[in-house]
Amino acid sequence: MTMFEKLMPKSDDFFSDFEAQAATVVAGTKLLHDLLQDFTDVPAKCQAIKDIEHRADDITHRAFARLHTQFITPFDRTEIHRLLSRIDDVLDLADAAAERLGLYDIESVLPESRELAAVLVAQSEKMVEAVKLLRTMKKDPRAIIEACKEINVLENQADTLTRKTMAMLFKRGNDPLTVMKWKEIIDLIESATDRVEDVANVIEGVVLEHA
Amino acid sequence: MTMFEKLMPKSDDFFSDFEAQAATVVAGTKLLHDLLQDFTDVPAKCQAIKDIEHRADDITHRAFARLHTQFITPFDRTEIHRLLSRIDDVLDLADAAAERLGLYDIESVLPESRELAAVLVAQSEKMVEAVKLLRTMKKDPRAIIEACKEINVLENQADTLTRKTMAMLFKRGNDPLTVMKWKEIIDLIESATDRVEDVANVIEGVVLEHA
Amino acid sequence: MTMFEKLMPKSDDFFSDFEAQAATVVAGTKLLHDLLQDFTDVPAKCQAIKDIEHRADDITHRAFARLHTQFITPFDRTEIHRLLSRIDDVLDLADAAAERLGLYDIESVLPESRELAAVLVAQSEKMVEAVKLLRTMKKDPRAIIEACKEINVLENQADTLTRKTMAMLFKRGNDPLTVMKWKEIIDLIESATDRVEDVANVIEGVVLEHA
Repeated sequence: MTMFEKLMPKSDDFFSDFEAQAATVVAGTKLLHDLLQDFTDVPAKCQAIKDIEHRADDITHRAFARLHTQFITPFDRTEIHRLLSRIDDVLDLADAAAERLGLYDIESVLPESRELAAVLVAQSEKMVEAVKLLRTMKKDPRAIIEACKEINVLENQADTLTRKTMAMLFKRGNDPLTVMKWKEIIDLIESATDRVEDVANVIEGVVLEHA
Repeated sequence: MTMFEKLMPKSDDFFSDFEAQAATVVAGTKLLHDLLQDFTDVPAKCQAIKDIEHRADDITHRAFARLHTQFITPFDRTEIHRLLSRIDDVLDLADAAAERLGLYDIESVLPESRELAAVLVAQSEKMVEAVKLLRTMKKDPRAIIEACKEINVLENQADTLTRKTMAMLFKRGNDPLTVMKWKEIIDLIESATDRVEDVANVIEGVVLEHA
Repeated sequence: MTMFEKLMPKSDDFFSDFEAQAATVVAGTKLLHDLLQDFTDVPAKCQAIKDIEHRADDITHRAFARLHTQFITPFDRTEIHRLLSRIDDVLDLADAAAERLGLYDIESVLPESRELAAVLVAQSEKMVEAVKLLRTMKKDPRAIIEACKEINVLENQADTLTRKTMAMLFKRGNDPLTVMKWKEIIDLIESATDRVEDVANVIEGVVLEHA
C-alpha cells in the first residue's frame, strides 16, 4: 500500500473524510518539520508536501461534492462544510510555508522554526484523535472536549514561541530582508496552528450541539 | 445615467443589494487595475476608488437597515448579513491597496501587481455572475456552484502569483522599505481575492441549504 | 475589593460572563494605552496586562465549561460560544502588542500608536455598553444596534489612523527593522479593533435573531 493509498478515505462517509484529511495534515506537517531539520534536497521535499496538499484537496472536493447529493448527513451540512474547510486550511498554510522555504533563497534555517513546526505536528496528531472520536461523540463527548483543550494549549505554546522567535530574529543582527522572509514563514506556521485551533472550535461547537 | 446611478440597487430587495454591491466591486477593482497599468494622476484615481467604496458602504448599510425592518427575507437573516459583509470586505481591501499606493511615495509599479489585480477583476466578474444566479437558485443550483468553483480556481491562481511575486521582489535587490511597502500592497490584493472566495463559500452554503 | 475581584463575574449567568470579559478588555486596553503614554517600567506594565489576560482566560474557560452542563441558555449555544471567543480575542491581541513592546528593544514610542490605542479603549467601552444591554435586548434592540454602529465608526477611524501611521513610519527615515517592529505592533492593535467590530457583528446577529 503506497502512502497515497493510505491517505485515501476508508469509506464513503464524512467521518472517513475528516479522518483522511487529518491524516494528510499529519503527513504534510511532518514533512515540513523534516525539511526544517534537514535543509537539503529542498525542491524535492517542497514538491512532496505540495503533492500531499493536492491529495488533501481531492479529498476535500470529493467530500464537498457528496454534500450536494447525499440526503442524510451525520450533522448539519453547514458544520460539515466548515469542518472540511478548516482542516483543509491547515495544510494549505503548511504548504505555503514550505513553498516559501523553496522560493526565498534561504541560506540557513532559523533553529526556532523547528520547534514551532514540532508543535504544529503535535497539534495535528491531537486533531486526528479528536476527529476519530467524532464517530462516537454521544458516547464520550468529554474525551473530544479534552482533545480540543489540548489543541488550544498547544496553540498557546505556538503563540509564545512565535513571539520569542521574532524577538530573537530582530536581536541577532540579521539583515532586514532575511528578517522579513523568516517573519513570513514563521507567521504562516503560526497561522497553521491557529487553524488547528479553529478546527478544535468547530468540533467543540458540533459536540455542544449534538452530543 | 451617471456611473453612480448605475451602481444603485435596481429595487428594494436583497438580491438587488447583492447585485449592486458586486457591481461596485467590479467597478472598484477595475479602477485599481487601471491605476497599476497607468500610474499617473494617482491621487485622483485613488479618490475615485474611495468614492466607489463609500457608495458600496451606503448600499451595505441600507441593506443592513432593511434587514431590521423587513418581516420576510428570501433566506436566513444571518446568511444575508454574512453575504452583505463579505462582499463589502472585498472592496474595502482593494481600496486599502489603492490608498497605500497613494500614501507610500511609490516610485514605480511592480509589474506582477498588475497581473494579480487582473485576477481580482476576473474573480469579481464571476462573483457578479454567481450573485445574479441567486434569484433563481432553485432552478439551477449547479450553475451557481460552478461559478463558485471558478472563483476558487482564480483564488488559487492569485495565491501562486503572490508567492512568485514575493520571491521576485526579494531577488531583485530592492531596498527593504520598498519590499515592505509592496509586500503590504500585494498582501492586501491577495486578501481581497481571499474575501471573494469567502463570498463564494457563503453562496455555496446558502445554495446547499436552500436550493 | 481588589481589581481582580472587580473583574470577576457577578453571578453565574452568561450575561455576567460577557460583562466580566468586556470589563477585562477595558482594563487591559487602558493599561496598553498607559504603557504607550509613559514608556517606563515596561516589564512590570507588560506583566500587568498579561495578568489581566490570564484572568480573562479564566472567565472564558469557566463560561465554556458551563455551556456544556447548563441545560437552558439565554440564546443559541453556538452564538454564546462565538461571542465569548470573539471578546476573548480582543484582549489576546492587545496583550500580544504589549508583549512585543516588551520583547523588541523598543527605544522610543511611535506617537501615533497612542492615538490608535485610545480608539481601542473607546471601542472597548462601547462594547461594555452593548454587552450590558444584551440582558434586556427585547426591550430596546435599537440601543444595542446603535452601540454596535458606533463601534464600527471607531473601527473605521482605527483603519484610517493605521494607514496614516504606516505612511509616516516609512517617511521618517526609520531603519527597516524599526519599521518592521512598529508595523507589527500597529497591526496587532488594529486587529484588536477589528475583533471588537467582530464582537459588534455577533451581537447584531443575536439581536436580529432574538429581539
